Amino acid sequence: MNLILVTSSDFTSEQAVRLRGRRLEHILQFHRPEVGKTLKVGLLDGLIGVGKITLFDQSSLEMDIRLTDNPPPQLPVTLVMALPRPKMLKRIFQTVATLGIKELILINAYKVEKSYWQSPWLQQDKITEHLMLGLEQGVATQLPDVKLVKRFKPFVEDELPAICQGKRCLVAHPYDAQPCPDAESTESVIAIGPEGGFIEYEINKLQEAGMEAIELGQRILRVETALPYLIGKLF
Amino acid sequence: MNLILVTSSDFTSEQAVRLRGRRLEHILQFHRPEVGKTLKVGLLDGLIGVGKITLFDQSSLEMDIRLTDNPPPQLPVTLVMALPRPKMLKRIFQTVATLGIKELILINAYKVEKSYWQSPWLQQDKITEHLMLGLEQGVATQLPDVKLVKRFKPFVEDELPAICQGKRCLVAHPYDAQPCPDAESTESVIAIGPEGGFIEYEINKLQEAGMEAIELGQRILRVETALPYLIGKLF
Repeated sequence: MNLILVTSSDFTSEQAVRLRGRRLEHILQFHRPEVGKTLKVGLLDGLIGVGKITLFDQSSLEMDIRLTDNPPPQLPVTLVMALPRPKMLKRIFQTVATLGIKELILINAYKVEKSYWQSPWLQQDKITEHLMLGLEQGVATQLPDVKLVKRFKPFVEDELPAICQGKRCLVAHPYDAQPCPDAESTESVIAIGPEGGFIEYEINKLQEAGMEAIELGQRILRVETALPYLIGKLF
Repeated sequence: MNLILVTSSDFTSEQAVRLRGRRLEHILQFHRPEVGKTLKVGLLDGLIGVGKITLFDQSSLEMDIRLTDNPPPQLPVTLVMALPRPKMLKRIFQTVATLGIKELILINAYKVEKSYWQSPWLQQDKITEHLMLGLEQGVATQLPDVKLVKRFKPFVEDELPAICQGKRCLVAHPYDAQPCPDAESTESVIAIGPEGGFIEYEINKLQEAGMEAIELGQRILRVETALPYLIGKLF
């Protein structure tokens, strides 16, 4: 991790934290801790700064921390993504947080297998764990919002039009689509389909909600590749 | 796979192929084969078209194929990448092929662990296998060239200047760097460092060879995320 992320429950006094478990193990393994050494630290949903190690052994590590800097701004993006297969979920959560996406809405689609919704990776604590890993990679602190939407039609008819209102709203879709627009740092809603794509009915519904279909070229990208590719293009 | 990739050794006559092994298993599992059904087929380093199933059982599958279309063009990119840790290699090879990168040069750097060069994933048959998986994902047929360069200095001093000659030559580096340039479909050489980045000496050498340092924003991206992000930005 390029940043040690701490939360309010790690504090033992106003400026001191005590870490155990995963973060302790990581620091012991990769950062060669010494008393007096400083590490880059961020407070979840707060500032970034440094932590000076005051005490450590194999069971815990204490730091005095001083938080002074704002984290890099989030991207003004709501990502609407058809629920990917469970083995990709961990990486998607991490990538979403690393890239600074503000909100992730995982939706159902015709080509999403029903069993995917039972994945243990969709439990709130697992989601948060992988979002935090992504923040530590990206040196940021703002936890993305994640929503799970198991019914396509009511979401797209009743909620999406308001979400799209006044924003750049794009759905990646290879047929009858516009070329991908140029980079612009503007409030955006981006939809990415399941493996095999959205079906025609779904694309029509997304377009009725205000989304424009764009294409990413002739090559079909995996979701995990399409996401950073699209963010690179659009911002 | 979005494309069944065949090679010259699969042909049993001028227009017929016989498949076994991985591709057969994949077709049996995901494509519900029937005699007369057509699948999208491409010839390695050749054209794309359709294959009509003429015969199949659990041990082999035969198709009459008709190849009519050019594959999507490759990106005019030479990617110079510090050798990533072995567990990322498979995915890097696949992503490089899916994105259509023409040439991949894996180089040594100070922060590349020596043991990485012993990885079994660097054997030629393993590299080709994962490049082909990437082509099948991206619906393309052109195998990227992959070179392994174990010595940094002679490559950067003696070969890179000629490779860079007349091209857009960029190294992703967060310090003293220009903003990432706008998208332009131009011959490019792009260098990406190891986890932890190139050291100052290496950046200087790359700049002497004609590369310009660019930054990708404040967030630190994993190599597997940085690659599609950068390709999205630059093309």
